[in-house]
Amino acid sequence: MSNQRPIGVFDSGVGGLTVAREIMRQMPDERIVYFGDTARVPYGSKSRVTIIRFVRQIVRFLETKKVKAIAIACNTASSYALDTIEAEVDLPIIGVVKPGARTAIRTTVNRRIGVIGTDATINSGMYPQYIHSLAPDIEVFGKACPLFCPLVEEGMLHDFVTEEIAHRYLTELKGRDIDTLILGCTHYPLIRSLIGKCMGPGVQLVNPAYETAVSLRDMLREKDLLAAPLPAGSEPHHEFYVSDGAEKFENFANSILPYDIRKTQVVDIEGYSMEKING
Amino acid sequence: MSNQRPIGVFDSGVGGLTVAREIMRQMPDERIVYFGDTARVPYGSKSRVTIIRFVRQIVRFLETKKVKAIAIACNTASSYALDTIEAEVDLPIIGVVKPGARTAIRTTVNRRIGVIGTDATINSGMYPQYIHSLAPDIEVFGKACPLFCPLVEEGMLHDFVTEEIAHRYLTELKGRDIDTLILGCTHYPLIRSLIGKCMGPGVQLVNPAYETAVSLRDMLREKDLLAAPLPAGSEPHHEFYVSDGAEKFENFANSILPYDIRKTQVVDIEGYSMEKING
Repeated sequence: MSNQRPIGVFDSGVGGLTVAREIMRQMPDERIVYFGDTARVPYGSKSRVTIIRFVRQIVRFLETKKVKAIAIACNTASSYALDTIEAEVDLPIIGVVKPGARTAIRTTVNRRIGVIGTDATINSGMYPQYIHSLAPDIEVFGKACPLFCPLVEEGMLHDFVTEEIAHRYLTELKGRDIDTLILGCTHYPLIRSLIGKCMGPGVQLVNPAYETAVSLRDMLREKDLLAAPLPAGSEPHHEFYVSDGAEKFENFANSILPYDIRKTQVVDIEGYSMEKING
Repeated sequence: MSNQRPIGVFDSGVGGLTVAREIMRQMPDERIVYFGDTARVPYGSKSRVTIIRFVRQIVRFLETKKVKAIAIACNTASSYALDTIEAEVDLPIIGVVKPGARTAIRTTVNRRIGVIGTDATINSGMYPQYIHSLAPDIEVFGKACPLFCPLVEEGMLHDFVTEEIAHRYLTELKGRDIDTLILGCTHYPLIRSLIGKCMGPGVQLVNPAYETAVSLRDMLREKDLLAAPLPAGSEPHHEFYVSDGAEKFENFANSILPYDIRKTQVVDIEGYSMEKING
């Protein structure tokens, strides 16, 4: 297996770019093939069966791009589909849930952790399940925040309406005396300061995007899959694919990535088989 | 063609139920086959090409249900896909845009009309285009209100946050001196009173759901396709299909329909051909 093959990164839309950005920062020699499922975004309100079907199609697509590993840069897809897909593919595959959960376990002192995310991520119970499997004594409190994504996509990052909504969503968690809060949706780091202000200085925020890039690097190193250093002055050639709206995607991407992307390609993702991979 | 065949009604999700409800009210003898594309909701942020592909699949599905006519109960799908699909199918087909636009033309006195809707509906320019084709002297002012749908789906129908957002979205339209406002998204009638309060008593609100049911009845009568009256005491047997999350759909449906629905079935909508219909 060639180490020069790219890493596949995907999300329901643009949110996973916060994960891609961390991978670029931490592993500047790696090439990324990014897929955003913008035709079917958001995943957060959809069912497990549907999410698994979507993820199977995307993994099939990434396999055609000869990726050496896959990062599921979406909390909902990680929650619902990682275990199923992991058993179906031969590639190393990583989600955002487990790295985020592990960091939260290391961070908490009073053994009380909060998790915020989409309806699907919270309903899946993945964060508490995984945390309890490693640290049964920790109490986990989840809260779905369905309006945060649309507010972020409206650009209302520093707005009293977003503060008011945050206040409503987070009051319950504040009453739980947590000392650690997992930002369980890839959009939330973009309103991190507002969430931090609402929770107060006694609560540490955990950003799974950062932790996922760290874990991915460890995994690639362990499997001897890290890319060779690039010649000085050259940069990896990343590729971006979406299932709809390439231009809109590029505008958002260019506002959060450290360099401008061009030529985002549209993929007919429904054309990829929904059958079990390797099965 | 049998008049007893059902009417196909579809939307990206639950919003189109406001149209189904009007059809049930105005034509109590008609059977409805409803499809909500809940696996791919929302349509409002997606592109024309993608919307047309989705609508082709749904029309194929409705054809297997032997419908006698189709109502596109979604402003985005009506804006982007009606003209294309109309040319491809033999069935009578109606969207929500034209009936709503015609009523607005009859309503305005000062010849200044506002339209609110999703990004896609407003960007399509369908409302101004159609209004100008019938009444070139009328000025039309559009405004996208992308947060209204998520706020409605969060149940925040009477909430100062929704009022604040409405105020921001609508201030621009208030400055245009319009006397008529089209509620160009099937979710918006559910916050009608809040929108009305914000616009003031000088602005008439037009609800395309109501107007669409009126036009559909006229169309069926003209083509001699109205169902025969049911025997006293009996009720038509409506059918409901979704592409995901039947239970969640039923909960919402039962909160806005005059009777409880059961046994909503999940359809694999991506399995229906995306090729041109009859082509």
